[in-house]
Amino acid sequence: MIRSIAPSDIVAIAPDSGIDAAVHGWRAKCLQRLVRMDLPVPPSHALAAGAVRALAQGAVLDLDVLRALFQGGTGLLSVRPSAVKPEWGGPGTVLNVGINDACHARLVETRGQKAADSIYLGFVQAYAQNVARLDFDSFDSGGENALQRALALYRQEMDEDFPQDPARQLAEVLRSMARAWDAPTARILRSAKGAPQDAPLGLVMQQMALAIGPGVTGSGTIQTVDSVTGLPVMTGRFKGQMQGPAKGQGAQTMYLTRDTRGDSLEDLAPELFADLVGYCAAAREKLRDEMQIEFVLSDGKLSILDAVRVNRSSRAAVRIAVALAQDGVIAPAEAVMRIEPRALSELMHYQTDPNAPRDIIARGIDASPGAATGRIVFSAAAAQASAARDEPCILVRRETLPEDIRGMHASVGVLTERGGMTSHAAVIARGLGLPCIVGATGISIDPRARLLHCGTRSFREGEEITIDGTSGEVLAGAPALLEPALDDSFNQLLDWADDFRDMGVRANADTAEDAHTALMFKAQGIGLCRTEHMFFDEIRLPIMREMIFADTPEDRRIALARLLPIQRQDFAELFRIMAGLPVTIRLFDPPLHEFLPQHREGMRELAESLDLPLSDVTRRIEALSEFNPMLGMRGVRLGVTVPEIYDMQARAIFEAAIAAAAIGAPVVPEIMIPLVSARREVEIVKTRVDAVAAAVRTETGTDFTYRLGVMVETPRACLRAGDIARHTSFLSYGTNDLTQMTYGLSRDDAGRFMGTYVQQGVYPEDPFHILDEEGVGELLLLGTERARRVQPGITISVCGEHAGNPQTIAFCHRAGMDYISCSPFRVPVARLAAAQEAIRSKAQPKG
Amino acid sequence: MIRSIAPSDIVAIAPDSGIDAAVHGWRAKCLQRLVRMDLPVPPSHALAAGAVRALAQGAVLDLDVLRALFQGGTGLLSVRPSAVKPEWGGPGTVLNVGINDACHARLVETRGQKAADSIYLGFVQAYAQNVARLDFDSFDSGGENALQRALALYRQEMDEDFPQDPARQLAEVLRSMARAWDAPTARILRSAKGAPQDAPLGLVMQQMALAIGPGVTGSGTIQTVDSVTGLPVMTGRFKGQMQGPAKGQGAQTMYLTRDTRGDSLEDLAPELFADLVGYCAAAREKLRDEMQIEFVLSDGKLSILDAVRVNRSSRAAVRIAVALAQDGVIAPAEAVMRIEPRALSELMHYQTDPNAPRDIIARGIDASPGAATGRIVFSAAAAQASAARDEPCILVRRETLPEDIRGMHASVGVLTERGGMTSHAAVIARGLGLPCIVGATGISIDPRARLLHCGTRSFREGEEITIDGTSGEVLAGAPALLEPALDDSFNQLLDWADDFRDMGVRANADTAEDAHTALMFKAQGIGLCRTEHMFFDEIRLPIMREMIFADTPEDRRIALARLLPIQRQDFAELFRIMAGLPVTIRLFDPPLHEFLPQHREGMRELAESLDLPLSDVTRRIEALSEFNPMLGMRGVRLGVTVPEIYDMQARAIFEAAIAAAAIGAPVVPEIMIPLVSARREVEIVKTRVDAVAAAVRTETGTDFTYRLGVMVETPRACLRAGDIARHTSFLSYGTNDLTQMTYGLSRDDAGRFMGTYVQQGVYPEDPFHILDEEGVGELLLLGTERARRVQPGITISVCGEHAGNPQTIAFCHRAGMDYISCSPFRVPVARLAAAQEAIRSKAQPKG
Repeated sequence: MIRSIAPSDIVAIAPDSGIDAAVHGWRAKCLQRLVRMDLPVPPSHALAAGAVRALAQGAVLDLDVLRALFQGGTGLLSVRPSAVKPEWGGPGTVLNVGINDACHARLVETRGQKAADSIYLGFVQAYAQNVARLDFDSFDSGGENALQRALALYRQEMDEDFPQDPARQLAEVLRSMARAWDAPTARILRSAKGAPQDAPLGLVMQQMALAIGPGVTGSGTIQTVDSVTGLPVMTGRFKGQMQGPAKGQGAQTMYLTRDTRGDSLEDLAPELFADLVGYCAAAREKLRDEMQIEFVLSDGKLSILDAVRVNRSSRAAVRIAVALAQDGVIAPAEAVMRIEPRALSELMHYQTDPNAPRDIIARGIDASPGAATGRIVFSAAAAQASAARDEPCILVRRETLPEDIRGMHASVGVLTERGGMTSHAAVIARGLGLPCIVGATGISIDPRARLLHCGTRSFREGEEITIDGTSGEVLAGAPALLEPALDDSFNQLLDWADDFRDMGVRANADTAEDAHTALMFKAQGIGLCRTEHMFFDEIRLPIMREMIFADTPEDRRIALARLLPIQRQDFAELFRIMAGLPVTIRLFDPPLHEFLPQHREGMRELAESLDLPLSDVTRRIEALSEFNPMLGMRGVRLGVTVPEIYDMQARAIFEAAIAAAAIGAPVVPEIMIPLVSARREVEIVKTRVDAVAAAVRTETGTDFTYRLGVMVETPRACLRAGDIARHTSFLSYGTNDLTQMTYGLSRDDAGRFMGTYVQQGVYPEDPFHILDEEGVGELLLLGTERARRVQPGITISVCGEHAGNPQTIAFCHRAGMDYISCSPFRVPVARLAAAQEAIRSKAQPKG
Repeated sequence: MIRSIAPSDIVAIAPDSGIDAAVHGWRAKCLQRLVRMDLPVPPSHALAAGAVRALAQGAVLDLDVLRALFQGGTGLLSVRPSAVKPEWGGPGTVLNVGINDACHARLVETRGQKAADSIYLGFVQAYAQNVARLDFDSFDSGGENALQRALALYRQEMDEDFPQDPARQLAEVLRSMARAWDAPTARILRSAKGAPQDAPLGLVMQQMALAIGPGVTGSGTIQTVDSVTGLPVMTGRFKGQMQGPAKGQGAQTMYLTRDTRGDSLEDLAPELFADLVGYCAAAREKLRDEMQIEFVLSDGKLSILDAVRVNRSSRAAVRIAVALAQDGVIAPAEAVMRIEPRALSELMHYQTDPNAPRDIIARGIDASPGAATGRIVFSAAAAQASAARDEPCILVRRETLPEDIRGMHASVGVLTERGGMTSHAAVIARGLGLPCIVGATGISIDPRARLLHCGTRSFREGEEITIDGTSGEVLAGAPALLEPALDDSFNQLLDWADDFRDMGVRANADTAEDAHTALMFKAQGIGLCRTEHMFFDEIRLPIMREMIFADTPEDRRIALARLLPIQRQDFAELFRIMAGLPVTIRLFDPPLHEFLPQHREGMRELAESLDLPLSDVTRRIEALSEFNPMLGMRGVRLGVTVPEIYDMQARAIFEAAIAAAAIGAPVVPEIMIPLVSARREVEIVKTRVDAVAAAVRTETGTDFTYRLGVMVETPRACLRAGDIARHTSFLSYGTNDLTQMTYGLSRDDAGRFMGTYVQQGVYPEDPFHILDEEGVGELLLLGTERARRVQPGITISVCGEHAGNPQTIAFCHRAGMDYISCSPFRVPVARLAAAQEAIRSKAQPKG
């Protein structure tokens, strides 16, 4: 049923009128606050959202009620959208509603022919486009007699004169804006910003303050911080003879503050400028944020039309929030809540300057944030050579393999043709804090010709490109970059965050370098040290291969004995750096074939170095190859069937712990068993590790303690967590593998269709990016509940890639995780996200 | 505390004495039944299990109590074990307890020197070995004066004369048997037969009926059926002058029944023989089974020592049970319960004759039962060539690939070096009812030299070998085989089973041949038709490849249009054969790269046939290759991203259903979507399938109905079964894939360590063989409960390989599955297992 709009649906915006942001929108509420602050806001009225919706559905407006709004002032109105949140947008503002021939004639007298024509023409154009739905371009002819031509064209197209009744004009504008709100594109755009399906829209009608006319007249905006840096500086613009975004005839821009280069508002109207500065300060204080104020000067009279939150870069957002809290305007908790955790990663890396030109040659998945410029290299060897020449390089590969790690270390950025958010390249790059783009569509690599093809363009090895891992864009050449901003504000914000945080944050760290980064970002320990990455360097890989080719356990033990001191050194170094903080070491995980050469050439070399016939080598490699390596002979399955490897690692850990204690960095190492699916696997490994511990204690005469835990990566380990918890001090969910197995989806192969899947809404998100709470999440909750039922004191955490994602961190907090562990460069994000979830959960107590 | 044995622990076995099988064991109970039947059983006493246990722990025996047992008769006793169940075994029987010099002297008089010596020597040997723990061989010298030498040796070793007090002899024998029961090997052996850790042992002491002496004297066994065939025939043995298994001096074997070849008991003692036959009939009737009776004839006097269940082959077991039920001795339900379902598969295939010699050259996993002899071939092509020459062949491969299917069809058996219970070879072979051994340890194949190496022996292509897929043994040459036994008894048993069964049994069938087999075994429909197997033949594969190489959806549709009539024909044929029974068709599942050649040669041929450069072909194949195909672009993921394939299949199904209805085989086809992990996947496919249905209805002017369902193979589909059930008529668990994902374990790669894992008890069973009820089973229960909560009428089933396993069938029954679907050759096993579970669940109503 279509209702008619009641007079009570239109409320005058006054200090004590009943304005409600949920009904009238944020803009109406904000204007009321400005009114309450005694700012010179022109008379304004708010139309309630219910009425707007009714209008869209054909409700009738009483023109007499509308007519009253034009009384006093210029007799003209602006109409602006007022959604519940500014970011939900809304239809474009319409200015100068109410202008007609009579009003135009009056304006010619008071403001001159040019100003009057400009104002009337602007409205005719807006009306023709938005209300009458005519082609805007036809009305945008410009030049002499533009107004007359526009009015004539309107008459011709619509078969009637341009409407002269201001109330009818207003009624049509309101209805057109109400309908525009329901357009599909508008819906999609605002739902992307989190608006619900039935998001309401209020409208604000304000008396026009004319910015065209005699004297110091014009419109402008002013704010007291820089939008990019967040530093305190009076900034904005003032354009004489110009109102709103419409093209005014003869508009003239001037500086806001005194400037040697030309006229400034401060010079021309020092008192009004002082008023504006005062208004900004007041608004910051009362509206509790940095505001951009929109004003009109009309022959010396100042009107404040609106105030909106200052647009801001991530780094500006941090500086503003911290400054507000330091000035006592907001509480530290609120400063913490105001920063989108994801935004922090922008502060930690180089960024492409948003204002600089960019020559985009390809797009891919933004796998690791930050920007870097370097010369193209196509192999790990070339990357190392380039690094040796001190020439920054970008490693460009079809995909990366474990043996590329040293090449990645030597590069400033990585670009791969294949792979998704959790491909090898992506995971390693995030760990190294290296900008990385994977799954770049439309590129192809010709390693022989040493060419990178991007669509129709080609780049040779050595040519300079830039990776923007934040946006996923590959750029030609070297655009301007912004430096990281790990400044006082950044640190202050995170220190406050730590005050509220009640869930631990550790880092995944495999190397001394990782550990240093983790400490720099104040991680509370290492939650995942992947020991297999330690076996790929030039010294170790040959011993590793010898071990794999050993014919007997005895031969294997001999090879492992040569790896022992190296591993011990690895762990001792980590313990020393972490200086007593907990370190969780995952025992060897990958299938052995990852350590063997994949190509004929490498096999030949291996055969030579092992002094074996080539056929022996190829046969062994073939025998170790697997159909589905992800689901094969790895993790604890190796630990059970080739137990010598874990024996060696356990010994290295214990001996390193003793060494660390001796230099004053006592540690209780945490040994984690990967890929468990049954209780008995844990018992078998535990028995052997305990035996190694006993042997080391006896040999060294030194006592030490350690904790044994399980990496929960299979759905079965979640289901049987009660069983498994009986034998373990901690459980840590490896959510990458768990996601793979829960979905039956390999992270390496998912890239091929994940785009389509997310686009079609088959999956709401890439589950390797944001934890699937409905499926994988249920397994986490179930496992946690079962483990705690058996052993209430057990430590439970998440150490997968997801642990760096704010949404997942919030889930982990709700799930009662003791800590999460993420890439070192994700630690600040995690600290902030965890703090926010803690604050939220205190604000809304459970149950 | 060690108790002494009370007189009440020894009970005389009499019709009304308190003999309890749980206390005195099966033998005591059985003897009591024989006594009640008035059979001439020598006086017998039972020693209770509690007393036996106490004895082992050192309890004291009152020798006077024992001495009373020797009174009357021969003055000698036998002592036999009497566990709760015969199959739990027990220490060996000891005969002639109580013999000493005086008794020996009496026997010399009544039975002669030779008989007396033989009896005394036998006991001295048994006593020396079992009680005194002396070396048996020293006492087994034979020849003249053997008795004297044995007694002297005993004196020398034990430093005392051979004990002359019968009561002391008995006490020691009882104690030694009690202790033997606790020996570790005995424990392991009986726990393998299902005995509990603390299984009790009773002992039976029986007056000896001497089988050595004058007149028609000897011992024998008699039964009325053949142990191998189960056919009614009087069979057994009679040995004159021989007692028990001990070597008697001058023992003489004769025929039991009248025989032209020599003496028979029937001729020598016709009346006694008639008595025996009568006793057999009575025992069958009263003990409700075919019994083997052990008897002694002592100079014309008949004693019945014991009766045990007739040892029987699987085929004999079926015939005996059915005959007993037909004769009204047992109820049909009991006949159904008496047959181990697994045993049925022995009846359905050729078997190696258990009595024939066998030359075992290798062992592997018994992947598909039955035996077959054929010439070795190393390729599918060679197999087809061999079949064309009508020469049976065994296909020997490292592992089989989908392209080997036609080669498997052409073979009588399959042997692979790699793989486990659910490898490709195993699954296909079971489907074809083809004997198959996979993961054969110690064999290696040299395809170039065309040699099969088995340890130190080698076999050329063309040489004859035999596969015993029931035992997992590979045999050289062509040993004797037994024919299948799909006779009246087999069918009668299964018809009875169907009377009790309350869960449906369907077959997995991909071809017309499968469907015929399924019908022959009375499957109630097809539960899983895998359509991808239809695309591997010579005509279809090239079209399939053209489809894969299509550059546009339009080209793809053109290729698919050529497959449409072929698919339609496939389905029409299935519907016609199944004549109205339900048919569930799984939409295309495997990754596309399975249809492309893997080797350079094949790629070259493909390039030629598609008229493309080789590099295009290799590039496309490389682009389609996957790290983990099991977790990649397959199933519904293909359906969503390349929807034209499912469109074609849906159309083929609907058009075939219309054609089937026209020839009087109306069917409601069931379309199943594979590898679902999210609700939206189902919605997308459903929308397209519905659209195809609507189009076919319009084009043909014919109405039809169909059911759309989901194959639940991912843990996530189980967790989200509530969501998914909203859009589907049925869910069918694909437990192979579900097991792979729940464990994070590829069935193809698990073979490498599954042996070790099961051996070490890491997994109690191979979870690809017997469903893991704790993990995968919980997901089944959870998914079923969630689906039924949303849609109580939904049909739920299991269609994985597990569905043929009796233990898993029992689980499925408890889980409330509507039906299970297994390989056609597993259908009889499933029907029987399901019936047994139904009977069991009625006997023990739930909670």
